[in-house]
Amino acid sequence: MCELLGMNANTPTDVMFSVTGLARRATEHQDGFGIAFFEGRGLRHFIDPVSALESPVAQMVQRYPIKSTNVIAHIRKATQGRVALENSHPFVRELWGRYWVFAHNGDLKDFSPRLHGAFRPVGDTDSERVFCWLMQELAKAHASVPTIAELTRTLAELLPQPARHGTFNLLLSNGVALWAHGTTKLHWVQRRHPFGAARLADEDLSLDFRATTSPDDRVVIVATAPLTRDEPWAAFAPGELRVFADGAPAG
Amino acid sequence: MCELLGMNANTPTDVMFSVTGLARRATEHQDGFGIAFFEGRGLRHFIDPVSALESPVAQMVQRYPIKSTNVIAHIRKATQGRVALENSHPFVRELWGRYWVFAHNGDLKDFSPRLHGAFRPVGDTDSERVFCWLMQELAKAHASVPTIAELTRTLAELLPQPARHGTFNLLLSNGVALWAHGTTKLHWVQRRHPFGAARLADEDLSLDFRATTSPDDRVVIVATAPLTRDEPWAAFAPGELRVFADGAPAG
Repeated sequence: MCELLGMNANTPTDVMFSVTGLARRATEHQDGFGIAFFEGRGLRHFIDPVSALESPVAQMVQRYPIKSTNVIAHIRKATQGRVALENSHPFVRELWGRYWVFAHNGDLKDFSPRLHGAFRPVGDTDSERVFCWLMQELAKAHASVPTIAELTRTLAELLPQPARHGTFNLLLSNGVALWAHGTTKLHWVQRRHPFGAARLADEDLSLDFRATTSPDDRVVIVATAPLTRDEPWAAFAPGELRVFADGAPAG
Repeated sequence: MCELLGMNANTPTDVMFSVTGLARRATEHQDGFGIAFFEGRGLRHFIDPVSALESPVAQMVQRYPIKSTNVIAHIRKATQGRVALENSHPFVRELWGRYWVFAHNGDLKDFSPRLHGAFRPVGDTDSERVFCWLMQELAKAHASVPTIAELTRTLAELLPQPARHGTFNLLLSNGVALWAHGTTKLHWVQRRHPFGAARLADEDLSLDFRATTSPDDRVVIVATAPLTRDEPWAAFAPGELRVFADGAPAG
């Protein structure tokens, strides 16, 4: 299994506190590290098929305070697919002139949909295959870029099909919204005014968000397991799909 | 105008000597830095819309000796399109289950082909638009991944169309071959046994390739202008298309 981290904010936000919390878990997830940051329509995409604790790319990302409104990160413990660069999450494709980023925690058995569209896996993971299928089905369902609410309705129709084949916790973003779907293990929390302090669950590091935020800032964090000890993380119900935009639940 | 750098090798090769040569030219090309490395089918893609001399991403790339058989790098001086992450070269798309990487030096005026396929620009450069058109036309011309020679024939038919609209020096790779097309300024050199030493044209730095190579190694470097002083760089003729595979001219 792998660990997921997603962030959606209404103002460009430094996600490094949460990434540090995620990286601490890399001792058990040594098969890959990846993170994608949207900056407007643009995307920074960093992957390395080694542990986040050893990756020079992960170290650079932790030192370089990239601010973003939408982030998806992943640390991998391989279940299907070799340990290789092309199998490292998150995966990226372009659709309707927007980059789409996808990361998956879980294991889909015998999900082999027909891929007849413009999206094909480069590597050999079940995760990239289901992402290509999702992109293909979204492209078929909408002629051009739909609203967030329309996309959420289409995803709500599509996601139960792969979910029948196994564990399907996922994060998906197009740089505007963050979709999160949980079947076994996914949690979320919103940080907003009045901001407080939080302590990482896995190490003795705390951050007072009051020092770096303004009263209008809103940030949603989604993670496999709660990353902090003193915040009201909520668990996803099995099969629950949530969408976040501007740092708040949407649609 | 921008500076291009491409590498194609028959064994994973450290390209940092050439990247250092390219980065020295960043004083005049401050609007973006980008480099993409293939590792097998996988791709590392680093972009930053700042000068290569200032980019922490560029610095990490220069310190982290990534070995690759196909590399495309670019430093940008904006002509069309704002200075923004989504306008930074090289650009990436997936076709036939392979990543394709594209970088362009030049300026295409009024090249607005109809984009009716699965490839749309995310940013607003002429370069990304012509790349999407090329991917669309390759996808139309071949049902599945063709041979290098077939791809070269299709590209030879396609490239004169945008080339009529301006300067169209470009590099394109799918991780197997490197295609290079020059209309005004592009040079290439092959390094092979017996290896010697070379001195960077822009600074007092030399490298003896004998220390890091074996007799079977072959490497082709393509660059806007020769990067070294003491190697037999050859200029592309106007409109010339060349393809390199396994560190040698192909097809």
